[in-house]
Amino acid sequence: MKIGLDIMGGDYAPKATVLGAIEAHSQLKNNQHLVLVGDKDQIIPILQDQNFNPDHFEYIHTTEVIGMGEHPTKAIVQKPNSSISVGFQLLKTGDLDSFASAGNTGAMLVGSMFSVKAIPGVIRPAIASIAPQLAGGYGILLDVGANADCKPDNLLQFGILGSLYIEHIYGVKNGKVGLMNIGEEEEKGNLLAQAAYTMMKETSLINFIGNIEGRDLFNNTADVIVCDGFTGNVMLKLAESFYVITRKKGFKDEFFDRLNYEEIGGSPILGINAPAVIGHGVSSPKAIKNMVLMSRDMVETNLIEKFKAAFN
Amino acid sequence: MKIGLDIMGGDYAPKATVLGAIEAHSQLKNNQHLVLVGDKDQIIPILQDQNFNPDHFEYIHTTEVIGMGEHPTKAIVQKPNSSISVGFQLLKTGDLDSFASAGNTGAMLVGSMFSVKAIPGVIRPAIASIAPQLAGGYGILLDVGANADCKPDNLLQFGILGSLYIEHIYGVKNGKVGLMNIGEEEEKGNLLAQAAYTMMKETSLINFIGNIEGRDLFNNTADVIVCDGFTGNVMLKLAESFYVITRKKGFKDEFFDRLNYEEIGGSPILGINAPAVIGHGVSSPKAIKNMVLMSRDMVETNLIEKFKAAFN
Repeated sequence: MKIGLDIMGGDYAPKATVLGAIEAHSQLKNNQHLVLVGDKDQIIPILQDQNFNPDHFEYIHTTEVIGMGEHPTKAIVQKPNSSISVGFQLLKTGDLDSFASAGNTGAMLVGSMFSVKAIPGVIRPAIASIAPQLAGGYGILLDVGANADCKPDNLLQFGILGSLYIEHIYGVKNGKVGLMNIGEEEEKGNLLAQAAYTMMKETSLINFIGNIEGRDLFNNTADVIVCDGFTGNVMLKLAESFYVITRKKGFKDEFFDRLNYEEIGGSPILGINAPAVIGHGVSSPKAIKNMVLMSRDMVETNLIEKFKAAFN
Repeated sequence: MKIGLDIMGGDYAPKATVLGAIEAHSQLKNNQHLVLVGDKDQIIPILQDQNFNPDHFEYIHTTEVIGMGEHPTKAIVQKPNSSISVGFQLLKTGDLDSFASAGNTGAMLVGSMFSVKAIPGVIRPAIASIAPQLAGGYGILLDVGANADCKPDNLLQFGILGSLYIEHIYGVKNGKVGLMNIGEEEEKGNLLAQAAYTMMKETSLINFIGNIEGRDLFNNTADVIVCDGFTGNVMLKLAESFYVITRKKGFKDEFFDRLNYEEIGGSPILGINAPAVIGHGVSSPKAIKNMVLMSRDMVETNLIEKFKAAFN
């Protein structure tokens, strides 16, 4: 297994990413090889500083970097030798089994769509965010930003993608799928939610429990929380801000610890033909490590094959 | 000034509402009369239990109650003698200067639209929520649920309504208006946000500062936070759940205290021809008191006249 990691992506790259790779290495099995995609001339000195044997990793040397503020589509096209562009090319050819980066989110999304592309039958892939639950365990919220405008069948498919993710990654079979809405009753919501409700309640592809509300993100009501990418992105950033507030105020707690993005690692892109994970821009070495392990889990569980079978 | 309060609305009515009226009374001036709308036979014994002189209040006796779970439009039509229906009729005739209720939110909204109606020029009134800011002061978030589907000009108008509210209620002149979105750049967002951005940046009616994100709800970035009622409702309930979590975990803090709905009192309906405030279903006496004071402030500052002038 070849696990690709973009060394150039993230606000603290390449140092944080290389240190994260070192942390991840100790948790990988012998057949799980970490492939560092980036400027080898910058990577090796950091490894040497850490007295870490460079032979533990494989390397794909790249010469360009897509900045955090660059326009995604332009950057992917104009920088074919960037770590993100090269990473996805290797993912497409099968030279990598997964690819993860804490770099430009838009470029990661565009890169994935240009290279490995959507799984046949998946209308729009989604970015998912892991939502720790108060009574323990993890839920998944999607979409959190890949699709600002959605159609009802997109939301139904997000429910399927999320259900398969939590089944195979977290062992939650027949996970409860909730539709994010502004009231519990069937007739509540905007036109999108109303139409999605009708589709979701009529399918046997998911275990649909009906509408849920903003307060239900963390309270174990649903395992899969489905919404359009606009709503999901606003929720994700609002929730993150609360985590930051509690940290600043010195509140320590097991639940808030699990909310920490560093523990979660990243946001998987679901519905494409290979495992890809997007990390937080401010990723620390610990976050990078967990992002690597998340992408490893997606390979190990054969998640993409499960997706393909479901949408076949 | 006649300040109307629905005594029958809320999960703990009539006890919590009557006790709230007593709390409010001590903070009202001599010319500010609290009018209790509800079943007088239930009200008087509670006052007597508290050794409170019933002559401090005026009464409008009503015989019907709209339940929290009832269908708003049906209930308003079928229960003309309910406290909410009667309250809005008196608000329409001018026998009340304001009306506040912690009862059925939908019935409050429908009742307001059927009776006092939207201010000429206001396409869709909004429900607003007060958002305490981390560095002090208050912002306003709207819409939080009156309009699940919005058009760009609705959002522009929400910006005007919110700006006038914080100017006259909180003394914040030329308040910063932010558009809730999923990125800072102008081209970001769903079709609604993109179109609203264009309208909002071209008008001189508001002090538009551009796009803001979910993390900016409490960080003093904007004084007026504009979004569609679906997004706003999800945000409001997510934020409330965080407050509940911190309370359950025993975290005490000045900011979290200000987040407490009890301190805020209620959500004003903005854009209708009279002051109306919707309280939280679980309102305590303290919350009822603050809801009464909020509606009083809307009368005292002549807010409706400011709205009318702006949309004339």
